[in-house]
Amino acid sequence: MGVLEKYGHGGDLQTAMETYGLKSGQILDFSANINPLGPPPSVMKMIQEEFASIVHYPDPDHRRLRRALSGRLGLEMKQLLIGNGAAECMALAMLALVPERVGVVYPSFSEYSQLAQQFGAREIRGVYAREDHGLMPDIEDLYECIRWADLVFIGHPNNPTGLVYRYEELVKLAEAATDSGTYLVLDEAFLDFLPESAQDSLLGELDQYPTTILIRSMTKFYAIPGLRLGYAIANPELITKMKGKQVSWSVNGLALLAGERCLKERDYEERTRKLIIEQRERLSSSITRNLGWKVWPGQANFLLVRLPSSYPTSTHLQEWMAKRGILIRDCSMYPGLSERDFRIAVFDEERNQRLLEAFAEYTEAWGRG
Amino acid sequence: MGVLEKYGHGGDLQTAMETYGLKSGQILDFSANINPLGPPPSVMKMIQEEFASIVHYPDPDHRRLRRALSGRLGLEMKQLLIGNGAAECMALAMLALVPERVGVVYPSFSEYSQLAQQFGAREIRGVYAREDHGLMPDIEDLYECIRWADLVFIGHPNNPTGLVYRYEELVKLAEAATDSGTYLVLDEAFLDFLPESAQDSLLGELDQYPTTILIRSMTKFYAIPGLRLGYAIANPELITKMKGKQVSWSVNGLALLAGERCLKERDYEERTRKLIIEQRERLSSSITRNLGWKVWPGQANFLLVRLPSSYPTSTHLQEWMAKRGILIRDCSMYPGLSERDFRIAVFDEERNQRLLEAFAEYTEAWGRG
Repeated sequence: MGVLEKYGHGGDLQTAMETYGLKSGQILDFSANINPLGPPPSVMKMIQEEFASIVHYPDPDHRRLRRALSGRLGLEMKQLLIGNGAAECMALAMLALVPERVGVVYPSFSEYSQLAQQFGAREIRGVYAREDHGLMPDIEDLYECIRWADLVFIGHPNNPTGLVYRYEELVKLAEAATDSGTYLVLDEAFLDFLPESAQDSLLGELDQYPTTILIRSMTKFYAIPGLRLGYAIANPELITKMKGKQVSWSVNGLALLAGERCLKERDYEERTRKLIIEQRERLSSSITRNLGWKVWPGQANFLLVRLPSSYPTSTHLQEWMAKRGILIRDCSMYPGLSERDFRIAVFDEERNQRLLEAFAEYTEAWGRG
Repeated sequence: MGVLEKYGHGGDLQTAMETYGLKSGQILDFSANINPLGPPPSVMKMIQEEFASIVHYPDPDHRRLRRALSGRLGLEMKQLLIGNGAAECMALAMLALVPERVGVVYPSFSEYSQLAQQFGAREIRGVYAREDHGLMPDIEDLYECIRWADLVFIGHPNNPTGLVYRYEELVKLAEAATDSGTYLVLDEAFLDFLPESAQDSLLGELDQYPTTILIRSMTKFYAIPGLRLGYAIANPELITKMKGKQVSWSVNGLALLAGERCLKERDYEERTRKLIIEQRERLSSSITRNLGWKVWPGQANFLLVRLPSSYPTSTHLQEWMAKRGILIRDCSMYPGLSERDFRIAVFDEERNQRLLEAFAEYTEAWGRG
C-alpha cells in the first residue's frame, strides 16, 4: 500500500508534504478527482463577499439550499438531505438504518466498507468485479448480494473504475432491493461529470423504490472539497430517519452559500463536461498507445490504469512520481485489483501533459518491456 | 416554547427571518452566545488569502491544528481530537462509548439529551438544579447520578445558567467518575470567556482521570460559528475510540486554517475577556436595578434572566422583541426552568444598550408591577 494512502484515500497533501518534503504549491495532485477548472469564480467571489456571515450559525435545516436543489432537480424539499460531504450522507444512512449485513462491490470506494465497519455492520460481503466482464460485477451476483444484505453500496459511476450501469440495470437493481427490503445506496458522486444525456439515474422515480437512496457530492464537480458538501435523495421517510442522526449544524455556512451559487453555474457545468470528455479520451489513448499500459473505459473524471507485468508495482510508480511532485492514487490495496493498478484524475491538457511526460520518463527508467 | 427554538437552539436567523419578515442585517441576535468583537481580523484576512485552498481536501488527521493546540495547551497531540463543532465531539463520545444510561443536569444545554437520544441511550436521567442552591445542582445528587450513569454531561460553565463549579468540585466529580467507571464529559465551550485565573479545568491532570473528557468550542469565543470548530481533550485511548467514529474530512479546511490562526490571537483574547466581564456586570446590574428582573450570577458571556411573576411569559417577551428585530433565547422549555426564564448574550455597550431600551419599553407596555 502506498504511504500516501495512510488514511485510506487520495488527496492527502499533508502526508505528501511531510513524506516527500514538498510544498503545497509544488504538488500536482492527480490522486483526488477534483474538477480541473477549480471552483466557479462567481462562487469564490460570493463567498469572499459574504464571508462575514460566518459570525452566524448555519441554518440547521439547510432550507435555502434544499429549496434551490429542489427547484433544480424537480424534487420536493422533503426528499433532500444536505450533508457535510457525501461521506456524511453515507454515514447517516448507516446510522439511521443500522444494517447488520452490508454489501459492496470490489473494487469500490473504500469508504463504503470503512463506514460499514465504523457504524456497526456485523458482516460485509463484496461482489468481485470480473475481469472477463471488463471489471463490472456480474448482475446476478449483485442480485444475490442484494437478497442477502440489509444495505448495499453501489458506485455509479464506480470509483476507481469509472464504470457505469445501464439505466435498465439500475431499474432492476432498485427493483430487487425493493422486493427484498434491502436498502440500496447508489453513490452518484461523480455522475455530474458525464454528458447530461448519459446521466442515467433513478432520480425522478424514487417513489417507486422506497428503499433506494441516491447520494451526490458537490465538492468534486464544483471543486470545493475543502468546504465539504453533499446531499442525499430518497423518499421523505428515509430522509427524516437520516436527518434524525445528523449532528446539529454539521454543514457549515460557507458550504451552504457556495452550494446555492454553484447550482446557477450552467455554463461552468457544460465547460467542465466538455473538458473532461475531451481530455479523458486524449489521456486514455496516449497512455494506451504511447506507453502500452491498460486503461479501463471509465466514464468519469478519472481513469483506472494497469501497468504491464514487466513493470514494478503501482506503489513503486506512486513513490517515484511523488518525489517529482506528482501524486497518483495507488490502487493496489483495493480488493479486486492488482498491485499494478492505479488511478489518475483527468485534468486540463497542460497538466495531463506533465503527467504523461512523467509516465514516459518512468517507462524509460523502469519499463522492462 | 418560542417559535424561534424550532430546532432546539438559539441563533436560528433563518426561522427569525421567515417568521417575522426580517432581513439578516436588521437582526440583533442575543439568542446565540457569540463574541461581540466578531472574528479576529487577522483570521478573516488569512482565510480570504488562503481561500483557494478549498480546492483541496482537508487533512483528515488535522495535524497542523492539533500541533498548534498541543503547543498552546501543553498537551500531547494524541490527547486531542478536532471536531466539526463541539456538537460533533459530543456525538463522537456517544458513538464511541455507547452509554446506555446518560446523566445530565437540568437545566443544561439541550444538545446533551438530544445527542443521547439520537445515539442510542436507553435512559436519560436529569439532576435538577436547586433554586435554594442558586440553580446549582446538589453535589451529592451529582455523585449519585455519576454512580448510576454510564456517561454524564456537565456544562462548565453551564448553559443557560452561566454557573461554574469550583476546582475542588471538578476534582471530586472526576474522581467519582473514575471510581465508578463512568464517562464524565465536561463541556467547557464557554470557559474561554472567563478570566484566565478563573478558568478552573482538569486540563493538565487528565492522566489521573481516564474516564473524563473535556470538550471545547472555538466557534463561540472566536466568533466563527458558521465555520464549525471544536475539540475534545482526553486520554489517548479515548481519543482513538472517538476518532474511530468520525466521518472522513468532517472538519472543513477553512475551519482548520482559522483555528490555527485564532490560537495566536492573545491580544484579542484579552480584549474579549475584559469586554465581557465589564459588560456582563453592567447589563446584569441594569436589569436588576432598573427593571427589577432577577439575573443569575453567571460567569460566562451570557445571562439567565427571570421575569417577575406579574409579567407575561418569556415566550411573549421573545415574540415582542423579535418583532423589533431583537432575538433572545426563550428558556421556558428547559427542564428545571420556568415559563418566565430567558437567556441573553453579553455584547458590547452599544448593542447591550439597545437591548436594555427594548426591555424598558416592554416593561412599560407589559409590566404589571
